[in-house]
Amino acid sequence: MTRKTVVLLSGGLDSATVLAIATRAGHACHALSFRYGQRHGAELDAARRIARAMAVAEHRVFDLDLSGFGGSALTDRNIPVPERPGAGIPVTYVPARNTIFLSVALGWAEVLGARDIYIGVNAIDYSGYPDCRPEFTAAFETVANLGTKAGVEGDRFHIRTPLIEMSKAQIIRKGVALGVDYALTVSCYAVDEAARACGRCDACRLRARGFAEAGLPDPTHYQG
Amino acid sequence: MTRKTVVLLSGGLDSATVLAIATRAGHACHALSFRYGQRHGAELDAARRIARAMAVAEHRVFDLDLSGFGGSALTDRNIPVPERPGAGIPVTYVPARNTIFLSVALGWAEVLGARDIYIGVNAIDYSGYPDCRPEFTAAFETVANLGTKAGVEGDRFHIRTPLIEMSKAQIIRKGVALGVDYALTVSCYAVDEAARACGRCDACRLRARGFAEAGLPDPTHYQG
Repeated sequence: MTRKTVVLLSGGLDSATVLAIATRAGHACHALSFRYGQRHGAELDAARRIARAMAVAEHRVFDLDLSGFGGSALTDRNIPVPERPGAGIPVTYVPARNTIFLSVALGWAEVLGARDIYIGVNAIDYSGYPDCRPEFTAAFETVANLGTKAGVEGDRFHIRTPLIEMSKAQIIRKGVALGVDYALTVSCYAVDEAARACGRCDACRLRARGFAEAGLPDPTHYQG
Repeated sequence: MTRKTVVLLSGGLDSATVLAIATRAGHACHALSFRYGQRHGAELDAARRIARAMAVAEHRVFDLDLSGFGGSALTDRNIPVPERPGAGIPVTYVPARNTIFLSVALGWAEVLGARDIYIGVNAIDYSGYPDCRPEFTAAFETVANLGTKAGVEGDRFHIRTPLIEMSKAQIIRKGVALGVDYALTVSCYAVDEAARACGRCDACRLRARGFAEAGLPDPTHYQG
């Protein structure tokens, strides 16, 4: 029987790759994206394109506005997106974002009867966000199994992080092998109106370096 | 200096008591309620009245619609609220609700600079929800400290559960001693249009028994 899974789909390179991995594993993928007050809608448009291209069982966009809290360059227009990486956790960190996203995914998964939640976190070529590390996702899995009916009844949840130890180049090679069209994805924190990437922010730099290291052409649409 | 705290405020008896406890402790209380697709707005009205009566620093109602997922008598009108407790976890359980609420509270707390999150969970006179048990809140505290910038930088979060081991009667006695006006609170899962309690659901039964055991008059407005 096909196993239902929930896949967090941001519209970026990593989550598109994760969706391809879960699809290839034969799962019925229920993709979940968030309209959380992010600066631009380009990544949600990308998520919709990817979900369609990969023929998911279902794609939902969940509304949950974190911009009222502020505290991040991604949700607060008064905090500029930096062009050069600084020391420590960058200002693009959104407080508790993955905890919130995984929690909502957990609620949906429990109702669907899905026990696997896929998330494209990566602790190698990443921005240093605390909620992308394996100790965080492991702790969340414990919460999932203590805080739900299914979990306490022994029908355990698993947080699946297939990219966690991969370099960006490895992720790209994997995705290309699985047929992911990375031209559909958006990684940039500061796209223009035509959804073209800035090429300068942290997310753009990590992405471009990944294609270079993988020795593969970068299909990103850049500005100017 | 007054310490900022986030207090989850449902509008029920327990969370009103928790708010009184946090207020008495001298904290600047930032109360957080959720419009999550619950059957009736009476509990949000109650939360607003309580927040006003207790002069909180701030009260926010966060929108996050879980009714699209279904799976609970509290968010799905096709599932009736039971009048008698059955065996196991009841159908009023909302999948991952406290995980979701605590996650959003965590995001807000981090931005506010609050490191204490108060929640009125109780594992004695309760409905058997898995996300009201101490092992759950302890696991969530671990997630909070692994998944946030503040947490990993050593400015630790604490999930405060002052009611966790109290009976309903003890909670009521504590609240009355702190001046809580329980007539402002709504516990019932099936209030009528005038926000009067049914007197029959699990929440009404636990509440009424609490007042009886505390030997205090029950100020609840009942139907009929």
